[in-house]
Amino acid sequence: MWRSSLVRALPTARAFSTAGIPRGAFAKLNDADVAHLRSVCKSVLTAPDEVAPFNSDWLNKYHGQSQLVLRPKTTQEVSEILKYCNEKKLAVVPQGGNTGLVGGSVPVHDEIILSLGNMNQVEAFDEVSGIIVCQAGCILENLDTYAGKHGYMMPLDLGAKGTCQIGGNAATNAGGLRLLRYGSLHGSILGIEAVLADGTIVDCLSTMRKDNTGYDLKQLFIGSEGTLGVITKLSVLTPPRSTAVNVALLGCESFDAVKAAFVQARQNLGEILSAVEFMDRQSLDMVMSQQPSLADPLESACPFYVLLETSGSNEAHDMEKLEAYLESVMEAGTVIDGTVAQDAAQAKKLFGIREDITLSLSSRGHVYKYDLSIPIDDYYKIVEDTRAALADHDAEVVAFGHLGDCNIHLNISTLKYNDAVQKALEPFLFEWTAKRRGSVSAEHGIGTHKPRFLHLSKTPDAIHMMRQMKQVFDPNGILNPYKVLP
Amino acid sequence: MWRSSLVRALPTARAFSTAGIPRGAFAKLNDADVAHLRSVCKSVLTAPDEVAPFNSDWLNKYHGQSQLVLRPKTTQEVSEILKYCNEKKLAVVPQGGNTGLVGGSVPVHDEIILSLGNMNQVEAFDEVSGIIVCQAGCILENLDTYAGKHGYMMPLDLGAKGTCQIGGNAATNAGGLRLLRYGSLHGSILGIEAVLADGTIVDCLSTMRKDNTGYDLKQLFIGSEGTLGVITKLSVLTPPRSTAVNVALLGCESFDAVKAAFVQARQNLGEILSAVEFMDRQSLDMVMSQQPSLADPLESACPFYVLLETSGSNEAHDMEKLEAYLESVMEAGTVIDGTVAQDAAQAKKLFGIREDITLSLSSRGHVYKYDLSIPIDDYYKIVEDTRAALADHDAEVVAFGHLGDCNIHLNISTLKYNDAVQKALEPFLFEWTAKRRGSVSAEHGIGTHKPRFLHLSKTPDAIHMMRQMKQVFDPNGILNPYKVLP
Repeated sequence: MWRSSLVRALPTARAFSTAGIPRGAFAKLNDADVAHLRSVCKSVLTAPDEVAPFNSDWLNKYHGQSQLVLRPKTTQEVSEILKYCNEKKLAVVPQGGNTGLVGGSVPVHDEIILSLGNMNQVEAFDEVSGIIVCQAGCILENLDTYAGKHGYMMPLDLGAKGTCQIGGNAATNAGGLRLLRYGSLHGSILGIEAVLADGTIVDCLSTMRKDNTGYDLKQLFIGSEGTLGVITKLSVLTPPRSTAVNVALLGCESFDAVKAAFVQARQNLGEILSAVEFMDRQSLDMVMSQQPSLADPLESACPFYVLLETSGSNEAHDMEKLEAYLESVMEAGTVIDGTVAQDAAQAKKLFGIREDITLSLSSRGHVYKYDLSIPIDDYYKIVEDTRAALADHDAEVVAFGHLGDCNIHLNISTLKYNDAVQKALEPFLFEWTAKRRGSVSAEHGIGTHKPRFLHLSKTPDAIHMMRQMKQVFDPNGILNPYKVLP
Repeated sequence: MWRSSLVRALPTARAFSTAGIPRGAFAKLNDADVAHLRSVCKSVLTAPDEVAPFNSDWLNKYHGQSQLVLRPKTTQEVSEILKYCNEKKLAVVPQGGNTGLVGGSVPVHDEIILSLGNMNQVEAFDEVSGIIVCQAGCILENLDTYAGKHGYMMPLDLGAKGTCQIGGNAATNAGGLRLLRYGSLHGSILGIEAVLADGTIVDCLSTMRKDNTGYDLKQLFIGSEGTLGVITKLSVLTPPRSTAVNVALLGCESFDAVKAAFVQARQNLGEILSAVEFMDRQSLDMVMSQQPSLADPLESACPFYVLLETSGSNEAHDMEKLEAYLESVMEAGTVIDGTVAQDAAQAKKLFGIREDITLSLSSRGHVYKYDLSIPIDDYYKIVEDTRAALADHDAEVVAFGHLGDCNIHLNISTLKYNDAVQKALEPFLFEWTAKRRGSVSAEHGIGTHKPRFLHLSKTPDAIHMMRQMKQVFDPNGILNPYKVLP
């Protein structure tokens, strides 16, 4: 399963084209560089077959030609590596779990890969406050398990949790399933230690909920995709793990009914509502087509599904709220069919369907992936418009996402890569989104894929400010070049 | 009441000394400047008696000598004002509700005051998502009332709510009573429009919960106290207003019991816990001494108090949880006396005591105010150590604060300003805090008061990064000079 270990998708017919991006004026790695870097970092990979997995993303869309992977164990090593690379003008791509979808953690040319996976230690956990301090390479699921032993949980959860690393989550400002309830990482990350391009270690590893002493520098590193610094340690506020968790899958006749079910859920379920996920029938069909043993989870086939989760501290209270909600939406005809998981295994199975959509899509053939924020009223219209735009092509359009955050994952599946489909989708989808003041990247980031579309979600002045920041903190541009900035 | 309108405290014997801060190399305002600024901004104050209230903070501790107050109504006006001031090298202090406690919104010398109070319009409110878009000068309480009409509430609440403005709240990263539940403004502010020193309008006024398109620039303005730009508009995620709210005041024999009551509250009250405030007996005595009609709220006088609030969607469920909690802490002897508010008026009265501590202190005489984050185990030890340090002085030491966030407001009251007391407190308190990796400013900010103590909570490299940012976005240093940076 992708969720618990890194499984590579089948190679697709065509890699995402980064061929058009010219190599920057960086130095070429030589033997003396490798020798020096070996002296500051013990774990070094140079054999082509060992380096290869780090040169591609898990969807096999992005391919680099790096010849060197460095796997430091300490912040000091990261600092010495960057100091050297900055002096020698060697480009570096920081890499966490490499589960990103926009090519942000893969070299474009021959950048040195700085893999954080060996920095995987939990350094402290406070039982009273639930604040965890750890190195950047800790795997999200491991941290969640660790926090769970103390009655807490990580404030984020995503399909890639078994592989992705907390440092990468922070660098990409990962969203996921729990954002609805626990907010973004800009709120729940309390402190960051990061290394700047010149090797400076910036220690903002506060473990306090409140610390208004000057500019909140850690925010710079959250979501900047490794272009302003390399995150080496974090402190994160973990919420108490709920003792009562309920999961329900609901079927609706129309998207209007989906919206109504969501609004009603916020009213009836209030403070215990912890996830509101959406998928269309096409998403479910896609999973069933790739997993023939999977039975339809509801008796009737519905065009739209809502997957709800509640988390609370009192099982009886929560069930009473959930039952009142279900009664109300069934009676009103908002929901036409549904099931409530009877135990944790069933709950996991229902969420598993939602999480398996991604892998099913990439198993089938080529997939064109879009991660958009769209105002709720137009949330599903973009799917219909995409189907219309692709009417002449043999393409499956499936949509799912975090309805509670107005975040849709629009996926177009073809058996093989088709340039005409690609041309029909871009820039059409990004312009469609920009017209409605949506976001062309809700949670996946910009990476290599979208710098040329950044102007659709950011003004020229904002992009200028970004460039100024990049110039100040990484004047040689060695950190994750070709990414984020157009 | 300070809570609903700006009431000035009695003048204290001595203003906070900014005399030692030399004036920067800024231009002096001349008649031609005033004439030009009148042409771009209609509301201008120059009469000394009209300018005076803007030259002092509400505690009458900080005094500037500005001769000009500009009160723009639009972002465009702010832009034109700053563009002119930047070209002419005229220093500017942005001012919101002017309720800050560290002199951040008051001129140090003759800076032009840019008052945002006329920019007080709500521009949009989304009924489904609860996202409000408004100008920076909106008063927090007005926004909360506005959101309340739609079933939502502002994610922050503080004593100054009747006067403070949302732009100032954002610029100072205000914390307050609801942070425990709804997190910091870094999470709940979704978008900001700000004007840079050179007049550039940066539109990052996103209204989406998720928007990972490049660096999250709005974060720069949150908590930078007007030194990097002037916030003109904001979009804020407002949480649903709870239909059931309960307030309880609990008395404890020891601070260890306070801590136990807090930990137990998190377990029993889980997702409905919305505030955990602390005050010592000395705080209550201070309020009672200034409000002779106020009766002791509990039958027995306790050395420590915890003020709890729950907010939920189901009155019966919440009361059941609260009763189970109270039974448990009373039986264990953690809590020795307590009262639960029977209605909204009683709840308001209980919170009123907590909120009136600040005004009572400043009514009594001179007050030395400290706003610290301290690890929970040492939370009250700093109060005891302060009392010991002041044993030879006639000084009252009172402490209260946001226990749930480890944020303590330590206040020392004397009838008149006493230099020996001041010397006994600083740098003692800041160094005491730094030794325990606490924060020398949890939520009040740095302002004029604490730049020289910033190094106790930030490393030299972090302070260097701040300087670099200031240099890039305000190269002439015209925005709120003498503040934040040492």
